[in-house]
Amino acid sequence: MSKPVCAVIGVGPGNGTAIARKFSSEGYKIALLSRNEDYLNRLTHEWADTRAYAYDASDMTAPEKVFGKIKRELGPVDVLVYNAGAGLFGSIDEIKLSDFEGAWRINALGLLAAVKTVLPDMRAAGTGNIVVIGATASVKHGANFTAFTSAKAAQRALAQSIAKHVGPEGVHVSLVIIDGVIDLPRTRETLPDRADDFFLKPEDIAQSVFFLTQQPKSAWTFELDVRPFGEKW
Amino acid sequence: MSKPVCAVIGVGPGNGTAIARKFSSEGYKIALLSRNEDYLNRLTHEWADTRAYAYDASDMTAPEKVFGKIKRELGPVDVLVYNAGAGLFGSIDEIKLSDFEGAWRINALGLLAAVKTVLPDMRAAGTGNIVVIGATASVKHGANFTAFTSAKAAQRALAQSIAKHVGPEGVHVSLVIIDGVIDLPRTRETLPDRADDFFLKPEDIAQSVFFLTQQPKSAWTFELDVRPFGEKW
Amino acid sequence: MSKPVCAVIGVGPGNGTAIARKFSSEGYKIALLSRNEDYLNRLTHEWADTRAYAYDASDMTAPEKVFGKIKRELGPVDVLVYNAGAGLFGSIDEIKLSDFEGAWRINALGLLAAVKTVLPDMRAAGTGNIVVIGATASVKHGANFTAFTSAKAAQRALAQSIAKHVGPEGVHVSLVIIDGVIDLPRTRETLPDRADDFFLKPEDIAQSVFFLTQQPKSAWTFELDVRPFGEKW
Amino acid sequence: MSKPVCAVIGVGPGNGTAIARKFSSEGYKIALLSRNEDYLNRLTHEWADTRAYAYDASDMTAPEKVFGKIKRELGPVDVLVYNAGAGLFGSIDEIKLSDFEGAWRINALGLLAAVKTVLPDMRAAGTGNIVVIGATASVKHGANFTAFTSAKAAQRALAQSIAKHVGPEGVHVSLVIIDGVIDLPRTRETLPDRADDFFLKPEDIAQSVFFLTQQPKSAWTFELDVRPFGEKW
Repeated sequence: MSKPVCAVIGVGPGNGTAIARKFSSEGYKIALLSRNEDYLNRLTHEWADTRAYAYDASDMTAPEKVFGKIKRELGPVDVLVYNAGAGLFGSIDEIKLSDFEGAWRINALGLLAAVKTVLPDMRAAGTGNIVVIGATASVKHGANFTAFTSAKAAQRALAQSIAKHVGPEGVHVSLVIIDGVIDLPRTRETLPDRADDFFLKPEDIAQSVFFLTQQPKSAWTFELDVRPFGEKW
Repeated sequence: MSKPVCAVIGVGPGNGTAIARKFSSEGYKIALLSRNEDYLNRLTHEWADTRAYAYDASDMTAPEKVFGKIKRELGPVDVLVYNAGAGLFGSIDEIKLSDFEGAWRINALGLLAAVKTVLPDMRAAGTGNIVVIGATASVKHGANFTAFTSAKAAQRALAQSIAKHVGPEGVHVSLVIIDGVIDLPRTRETLPDRADDFFLKPEDIAQSVFFLTQQPKSAWTFELDVRPFGEKW
Repeated sequence: MSKPVCAVIGVGPGNGTAIARKFSSEGYKIALLSRNEDYLNRLTHEWADTRAYAYDASDMTAPEKVFGKIKRELGPVDVLVYNAGAGLFGSIDEIKLSDFEGAWRINALGLLAAVKTVLPDMRAAGTGNIVVIGATASVKHGANFTAFTSAKAAQRALAQSIAKHVGPEGVHVSLVIIDGVIDLPRTRETLPDRADDFFLKPEDIAQSVFFLTQQPKSAWTFELDVRPFGEKW
Repeated sequence: MSKPVCAVIGVGPGNGTAIARKFSSEGYKIALLSRNEDYLNRLTHEWADTRAYAYDASDMTAPEKVFGKIKRELGPVDVLVYNAGAGLFGSIDEIKLSDFEGAWRINALGLLAAVKTVLPDMRAAGTGNIVVIGATASVKHGANFTAFTSAKAAQRALAQSIAKHVGPEGVHVSLVIIDGVIDLPRTRETLPDRADDFFLKPEDIAQSVFFLTQQPKSAWTFELDVRPFGEKW
C-alpha cells in the first residue's frame, strides 16, 4: 500500500529488467516503460505490483500521458531510472544526420522530458531519485561512435546540470557509467571467445543503481563507474 | 588566386568578426556566414576577397546550398571555423524542450552538417582545418545553463570523435574552450564595474584560433582553453 | 575466527572512526592504524575484535613491521582503507618545500608502501579491497591548496594505475572523492553559521566505502564522489 | 642587451634542445640547464647568447645557486621551460619506493623549487612565463607507468594551482601534454617499423611552447595537448 514506486524507462532483456527486478525484490511497485509492450507483459506476470506501459522515449507527448497514468495506477514516482537508448556504432562517415538526431532525442531530450514530468511530485515530497544509465561513451569520445558519444555527452551534462539544481530540494540525480560489454545472449554470440569474466552482469549493475538511491542525503554520489574486474581500461 | 579559403560560421560583432579579420590579414579569402547578412555586408566592404553568405546553422538544407556557392565563388574551404550558437541562460525550470532542442541544433547538429559538407574537399586535398569555438559550458555543467551546457558537451564529444577519425587523413579538428566573458559593448554594459582585465578580447582569441590552423601535423592540438589572466578559475 | 579483516590507516574522530565502526558492525575484525595510539585504544575497548597499531604513514619502515603484526594477531588483511593525510591549506607562497614533501609522503608514497605490503596476501587469495579516501583536491586544483592538491592528484593517479594492474587478479582498488566539509566538532566550530545540511556525516560516507568493498566483481567502481545534497558544485 | 631570457630545465637531444633553439632563433638569451653539461657545451658554441649550467632538478639547493648565477650572467628569467624528467616504465610490481620518489622529486618537487626561485623577479616585472612539459601520463594513469603517472599528475595539479595563484599578477603558467612518441634516434631504434608519421617532432612541439609564451594576457591557455596527426587516441 505504502510501497514506493520505481519507474524504469528502457526495459529490454538486459539492464532494464535487472534493475526493475532488484527494485521489485526490495519492495517497490514497478512501472516498466518500453516500446516493446509484449516483452514487458511477461514480466508483469512474474512480479508483484508491476505494470507495463508502452513508451517511446523520443516522443515528447509520451511523458505527460504515461506518467499521468502511472500516478493514477501506482502513485507518484519515487525513483526514475532512465535506461533508454541503445549503443549506436558508426563514424561520421557511417551515420546520417537523422541517426545523430535520433540518438540525441532518445538519450538527452527524452531524459529532459521525463525529468520535467516526474520532478514536481519529487519536489513536493522533498525527496526522490533519478538514476541515468550512461556508458563509456559518456566520457570517452571514440571515432566510431560519433552519434552515440555526442548523445551520451549531452545526456551526462544535462544530468549534472539538473543534479546541481534540484539537489538542494532533496532530489538526488546520479549517473552510472557502464564501462564494458553487458552479458546478454546477443553479446555472447557476437563475442563467443570471451571468458565469463569479460562481461558485466546486469544484476550486478543493478546493485549499484539501487545503492545510489539509498544513499543518505549528507553523502550523495553524482557519478559512479562500473566495469568488470578483468576489463582493460 | 591561390589564396586559401577560410569560412567562418557565426559572425557577429565579437569573436566571429575578429577571427575572420585575423585570417583576412593573414592572406585568406574569407566566407562570412551568418543569419544577419546586413552586418556581414559591412565587413565585405572593408576587407579584400571577402564574401557574405546568409546561413542558418540550424537549417539542415543550408550547408549543401551555401558551401556549394562558396566553392564556386571562392574555392574549396581550407579552414572552417564553427562559431555558431550564443550562450543560453536557464535552469531546467526556465528552459523549454524547444530551447533545449534549439541549442543542440545550432551547436551540435549544425556542426555535423557543416563538417560533412566541407570534409570531402579537405580529404581530397589531404589537408584542412576545422576549429570549433567552445565555452566553459563544454566541460563544466552548471545548474543555470541546462540547455547550453548539454549542447556544448554534445558539440565537444562530436568534435573529438571527428578529430580522431579524420586526423590520419590530414584534417585537423580542434576545439577552443573560451572560459570567461568576451569584451563586447553588450557585456560591458551588463558588467559596468568590471575592469578591462576582466574581459577576453576577441582579437586575442583569434590569435589562438589562427595558431591552431598553422600547427605542423606532427604536433596537433585538439583542445585549448583561453581565459583572461585575472579570471578566477 | 573466520571473520574477515579490515585495516584502516588514518583513524581520527571523523571518517576513519566511522569507517572502522561500519566494518566492525558488519562483522569484520578491525585493525586501527594511527599516530595517535591513545585515541585508538579508546575504540578497542568499545568494539569486539579490534586492535590498535601505532602507525606513521610517512615512515617507510612502518608497513612491513605493522602489517606483519596485524597478520599474526588478526590474520591477512581483506580490506585496506587508506584515510591518512589531513587537508593542508596554503598557496605556493605559504607552503615550504617540506610541506609539499610531507603532504605527498603521507598521501601518495605512504599509500604505495602500504599497498605493496598487503597486496601479496590479497593476490594469493584472489580477492581483496583497497579503498582510498580522496578529496575535491584530487580532481580540482585550487590556488590555495598547492601542496594538498598535488599530493591528492599523485594519490589518485597512483590508485588508478594500481587498480588497472591488480583488478584482473581479483583485487579491487577504488577511490572516494569527498567533496565538502566533514561534520566534526572542529569544523562546526569553524563554521558556526552553517546549517546541519552543509556537512558530510562520516557515518554516511562510511556506507559508500563499505558498499564499494561489497560490489560483485563483474561491476566494480573505481571512482565515486560524495557530497551533501545542499552543496554548491 | 635588452634581449629577454629563456631558461630551459632538462635539455637533452629531444624537446629541450628544440625548445631552446626556437627561443634562441626568436631573439632570446638562453640558459641551458641539465645534469649533462658536456652536451650543453656543444650547443653554447653554436648559438649566440647561450650559456650552460649544470643542474640537477632533484637537488633542492640547485635553484637558488644556479638561478642566482643566471641572473648575474644573463639577467632575470622571462621564460622558464620545465622539461625535466624522463618517462619511467613500470607497474607497481616493477618500481621501488625509491623510483616512485625519484620520479616525483624531479617532476613535481623540482618544479616547485624552480618556480619559487624565478617567481619573485617575474612578479616584480608583472610579467613572465612558465611552461611545464607534461605527457599523456599527466592525465591518463596506465597500469605500467605507476611512478611516472603519479609524478606527472602531481606536476599537473601543482602547475594548475600555481597558474591560478600567479595569473592575476601577470605570470602565465601553462602545461603542454605531449601525447605520443618523440622523434629521436633512440625511439626510432626501438620502433623501427613505424612510419615518419608516427612520431612527434621536437621542433614542432617547440612551436606550441613558444606560442604559449606569446599569448596576449586577455586570452591565456593553461593546457594544450599535442599529438601526431596519425596517433590513435
